[in-house]
Amino acid sequence: MASTVAGPEIERLIQLLARLPGLGPRSARRAALHLIKKREALMAPLASALQVAIERIQVCHTCGNIDTQNPCTICSDPRRDPAIIVVVADVSDLWALERAHATQGRYHVLGATLSPLDGIGPQDLTIDALVTRAQVPEVTEIILALNATVDGQTTAHYVTDMLQDANVKVTRLAHGVPVGGELDYLDEGTLSAAMRQRTLF
Amino acid sequence: MASTVAGPEIERLIQLLARLPGLGPRSARRAALHLIKKREALMAPLASALQVAIERIQVCHTCGNIDTQNPCTICSDPRRDPAIIVVVADVSDLWALERAHATQGRYHVLGATLSPLDGIGPQDLTIDALVTRAQVPEVTEIILALNATVDGQTTAHYVTDMLQDANVKVTRLAHGVPVGGELDYLDEGTLSAAMRQRTLF
Repeated sequence: MASTVAGPEIERLIQLLARLPGLGPRSARRAALHLIKKREALMAPLASALQVAIERIQVCHTCGNIDTQNPCTICSDPRRDPAIIVVVADVSDLWALERAHATQGRYHVLGATLSPLDGIGPQDLTIDALVTRAQVPEVTEIILALNATVDGQTTAHYVTDMLQDANVKVTRLAHGVPVGGELDYLDEGTLSAAMRQRTLF
Repeated sequence: MASTVAGPEIERLIQLLARLPGLGPRSARRAALHLIKKREALMAPLASALQVAIERIQVCHTCGNIDTQNPCTICSDPRRDPAIIVVVADVSDLWALERAHATQGRYHVLGATLSPLDGIGPQDLTIDALVTRAQVPEVTEIILALNATVDGQTTAHYVTDMLQDANVKVTRLAHGVPVGGELDYLDEGTLSAAMRQRTLF
């Protein structure tokens, strides 16, 4: 309908914006209008940033991270401990761990978690590449930093099985009370896990 | 922090996306990742749609609508009633009225509402252009389709004053119960307005 008002160009922009996660049709409309109003300050820089990203961003052949260099900044950083590989499902998880400065190890991005219902099987994940990397002698520990969901834990078990023949220690993130969390609001599973895995104070 | 992970190009993309209304830093990060993953299907089309918009979208000299032609599609549509000018604060309001097929008149976009606290005075609105348009003999009615907020109603009063010398009827949108609305949830102001302006059934 709005296409008869503002022309197909604006409508196309709205439709594309609406496909971004977090933006629905209505907020995409607002975003498009905001962009058009801030043509010089926002729309032009965004268009060129997208163009730069299209041209320069690539997937790291080693770990699956995205970067403008290949191997990525982390894989080619000599200060990163080559003995530790942190396995994550997605680049967003890698970013989250990096924001937390949680590890000095390197990463391996699986690309997804096993999810039979969604038709995602082992062949869709970069598990073979992980097994190959794990067989390098200097690698001593594989940390499974996967979501504490059914799919995430299924994937963790599967990856652990695949790594049986590699001479590495396989660990996973601790379960427990989130920092800042109140016991009263936590589910039973988390509370029992936190109790079982209690540590010396 | 993430700039050390994924390079300044991605970080810049995230920062620009975060300036869109409806996207915060976290959802901008998700949106950027989504774009990078769907490079061909989404990022490239979005970049070119933005480029097209930058090059072709302009503000209608007559009414202030945005379009790829000037005068805009509505102003140059002979089926639109030249006797009626619907005054709106913003292009988004114009779009909303068009989606509702609410009027066959033409529009006039003020660009904002009067808001002394935000430093928006009459000189920031296209009121002079509206007065000029209202003096064209064929224009008989000015419909004030402004928000039912303090700023919107202040603007409506100011515009009405300015139009005193023009030979036009000035009307405003009805106040009342929204279609689908329940009386129990409505505020007192709306209910009294709806009662005062009751119509024959």
